[in-house]
Amino acid sequence: MFPNKKIQSLVGSRIQVEMKGENTILEGILSGADEYLNMHLVDSVEVEDGRKIKSLGSVILRGNNVVLVNPL
Amino acid sequence: MFPNKKIQSLVGSRIQVEMKGENTILEGILSGADEYLNMHLVDSVEVEDGRKIKSLGSVILRGNNVVLVNPL
Amino acid sequence: MFPNKKIQSLVGSRIQVEMKGENTILEGILSGADEYLNMHLVDSVEVEDGRKIKSLGSVILRGNNVVLVNPL
Amino acid sequence: MFPNKKIQSLVGSRIQVEMKGENTILEGILSGADEYLNMHLVDSVEVEDGRKIKSLGSVILRGNNVVLVNPL
Amino acid sequence: MFPNKKIQSLVGSRIQVEMKGENTILEGILSGADEYLNMHLVDSVEVEDGRKIKSLGSVILRGNNVVLVNPL
Amino acid sequence: MFPNKKIQSLVGSRIQVEMKGENTILEGILSGADEYLNMHLVDSVEVEDGRKIKSLGSVILRGNNVVLVNPL
Repeated sequence: MFPNKKIQSLVGSRIQVEMKGENTILEGILSGADEYLNMHLVDSVEVEDGRKIKSLGSVILRGNNVVLVNPL
Repeated sequence: MFPNKKIQSLVGSRIQVEMKGENTILEGILSGADEYLNMHLVDSVEVEDGRKIKSLGSVILRGNNVVLVNPL
Repeated sequence: MFPNKKIQSLVGSRIQVEMKGENTILEGILSGADEYLNMHLVDSVEVEDGRKIKSLGSVILRGNNVVLVNPL
Repeated sequence: MFPNKKIQSLVGSRIQVEMKGENTILEGILSGADEYLNMHLVDSVEVEDGRKIKSLGSVILRGNNVVLVNPL
Repeated sequence: MFPNKKIQSLVGSRIQVEMKGENTILEGILSGADEYLNMHLVDSVEVEDGRKIKSLGSVILRGNNVVLVNPL
Repeated sequence: MFPNKKIQSLVGSRIQVEMKGENTILEGILSGADEYLNMHLVDSVEVEDGRKIKSLGSVILRGNNVVLVNPL
């Protein structure tokens, strides 16, 4: 499946995102995404070694700094 | 919500921004943002471990180096 | 061969991908790729020193953070 | 204010610039800037911990590696 | 000579490439390159301190992560 | 002066270039540059602490990984 189509299919679902310049993984519900993989997550938390270490709530992520998106 | 729409809704609000190549978090009032997530912050400060460590005033941030935007 | 043509020829094949901001290599079946080298992998795993260390399943990779693609 | 408009308003003024891949801050007079935040500085110096450590004169900075611009 | 013209003149030749996010240098025959400096190398190897340390065969390199191309 | 105009004025001159992902500075004669700051240098050398440590000859540099250009 095309990457962008796959991302759009995940809107409303819980995903994990690895960002450049972040040591932790972000986990949240994908509220929206555009063609550049800019994303808006809600109910998001930072996860390290499988444990939630910080609650972030609503965050906007810049697409070019997304390394990997992993549906849960 | 689309990421860019979300950002525009934050103009005039206090936000935190994580930048690539910065160890600290920037916090300020979003004065303006364009479609590339270039941002102009005013009354901005550097924050580390929840403490304000440096006052920066007016700063321009390059969108592609924005990792994460977090409304306060 | 042109790089993009080469990538399209790999859809359905097992590949290894080195990402910026990842210490491990990703290995999976290329399900789809666009012109920016955004990729969708399925049955993917993280590989370190030739050993599979984590199963990831379906992942979306952001093209600009791809360093190198190596067909298996 | 829009970020690009803010930058144009700084032409002729002394600014500080944080670059990715630089440990020091660059300080100089903004001679020109384009829409990508590529910048031409004159009378520029490298600054570390508030002290000028190296004189650079005229430098061209690549916009995508600009992290933060701070008017003085 | 224009950079892209220079790259096209190297198709079929052996080159060395420094990538961001790689500690080693890649060496191979340039099979194809596009305007973004995406490249397809064949007969490629990883080189460290002048010694070949790993054979990679056919690899696709993402142009924006290319730092430097050096014809041999 | 606009950054791109400044770069074009340097064709044929000796320049120093700081690249992301390089610990050394590159020095060479600018043979050509395009609007993305992709550059072709000839007679280039790697410089560290003011000393030439390696001769590179002809190199192509990817514009987005250029941090700073300094005319000599």
